[in-house]
Amino acid sequence: MPNILLQIEYDGTDYAGWQIQNRSPSSVVRRPLETIQETIEKVLEQVLQEKVKVSGSGRTDAGVHALGQTANFKTESRLGPARIHQALNALLPDDIRIKKARYAKDDFHACSCARSKVYRYVISNSKVASVFLKRYSWHIPYKLDMPLMKKEAKSIIGRHDFSSFCASGSSAKTRVRTIKKISVKETVSAVSGCAYSGSSPVIIIEIEADGFLYNMARNIVGTLVEIGRGRLAPGSMDKILKARERRTAGPTAQARGLFLVKVKY
Amino acid sequence: MPNILLQIEYDGTDYAGWQIQNRSPSSVVRRPLETIQETIEKVLEQVLQEKVKVSGSGRTDAGVHALGQTANFKTESRLGPARIHQALNALLPDDIRIKKARYAKDDFHACSCARSKVYRYVISNSKVASVFLKRYSWHIPYKLDMPLMKKEAKSIIGRHDFSSFCASGSSAKTRVRTIKKISVKETVSAVSGCAYSGSSPVIIIEIEADGFLYNMARNIVGTLVEIGRGRLAPGSMDKILKARERRTAGPTAQARGLFLVKVKY
Repeated sequence: MPNILLQIEYDGTDYAGWQIQNRSPSSVVRRPLETIQETIEKVLEQVLQEKVKVSGSGRTDAGVHALGQTANFKTESRLGPARIHQALNALLPDDIRIKKARYAKDDFHACSCARSKVYRYVISNSKVASVFLKRYSWHIPYKLDMPLMKKEAKSIIGRHDFSSFCASGSSAKTRVRTIKKISVKETVSAVSGCAYSGSSPVIIIEIEADGFLYNMARNIVGTLVEIGRGRLAPGSMDKILKARERRTAGPTAQARGLFLVKVKY
Repeated sequence: MPNILLQIEYDGTDYAGWQIQNRSPSSVVRRPLETIQETIEKVLEQVLQEKVKVSGSGRTDAGVHALGQTANFKTESRLGPARIHQALNALLPDDIRIKKARYAKDDFHACSCARSKVYRYVISNSKVASVFLKRYSWHIPYKLDMPLMKKEAKSIIGRHDFSSFCASGSSAKTRVRTIKKISVKETVSAVSGCAYSGSSPVIIIEIEADGFLYNMARNIVGTLVEIGRGRLAPGSMDKILKARERRTAGPTAQARGLFLVKVKY
């Protein structure tokens, strides 16, 4: 049965994440949002005229975005990837776009075959929040100590037990992961691509790891921000890592600033 | 009575424009959206405890954005601009932000004192539309002839009767305006400010004029795109300008791609 790989971009603002993690009590009261996965499966079933199970490279939380989420599914349909690609983009809501669709090997699985993932976090660092970045960044109006954040970030590169940066509800068997790269950069964002009077200073934190524990990227960012603000002392990153206790780290950074950039195979 | 000048940024997506232009029959049926002006006036009245009339530099249509709209209002209140600035940003919805607030001369009026305005139009020119640009651009998936568009754009610089680019409903006394500058540029947009795998090619058209007729910026862009696609011949821009007939020009470009960048005094 053909196995098809999708590369997907989405604006996570109006979704309950890639897949339901666990329904919190509040979500029973509020109108439950759809997940990205459900939305794609529904449209695929319409296109392929059969039940389809789409498996993502991993979950992204409610409000988290993707530039390059990947997923695969098996289908009995004779439609090739090009036709499926076109039909999906015609029928999906316009905050979910299929960027690529191609055949994958029979034993390919978007999750278990992933070698590493790259996440990017965007902090909007202007005094007044940019309306154009509000869906896509965490607005922090105060000054952050950039050289210190860069230095502290380096101290968690490598293979470690990341329990301190893992949400307490995680069911992961092991909390050992390898961070391959981490960078903290200042730049300028402009929705229209070139500098204008309204361009905003942003800080970009990018992390590549062989895997991410639940909330790991956002907890690392939240902790780096506490250090950058001076609420945690220099050297904290290393100490927190070694403590292996979630309560020693900083708060979880807002979902809206996080982008799954790429999944490497 | 103190006269206060505001500089305002907004995401126009969820508003009925700066000010109601005319209620179309369909807007009677659909839930009418608020205008930016009404929204700011309501919050100002709450802050100043008096009725306030906010006068903008001009109207922007439903869905059009601003990086630097300006407006002024007179108030009996003793609150200074800094306090008003803070209170407004605390109480306004987060898709409207006050960027500056300061005292203006008694006879200053945001509309009649404006010397020129700069509008920017964003065309997303990738094959698959970027989900992050959908609120802020017109997606055109086909190739546009950039050198030709640049050349054609230049032919409308200067003082002319812009009737061909003016919506038929306009009540302007004269349709003569002066375009001071117009540029057509290719660049790359990235919501997070630096290039990533998901960065998208965009075309930016920027126009500075001493005034804009109703839909003038969007009609100029719509016509340039027709030329860039090859549906209007080279030389059309000049011919259309001289015809002084709206029906000779191209369609009105989508509101979502337009930004009021700056008002010069």
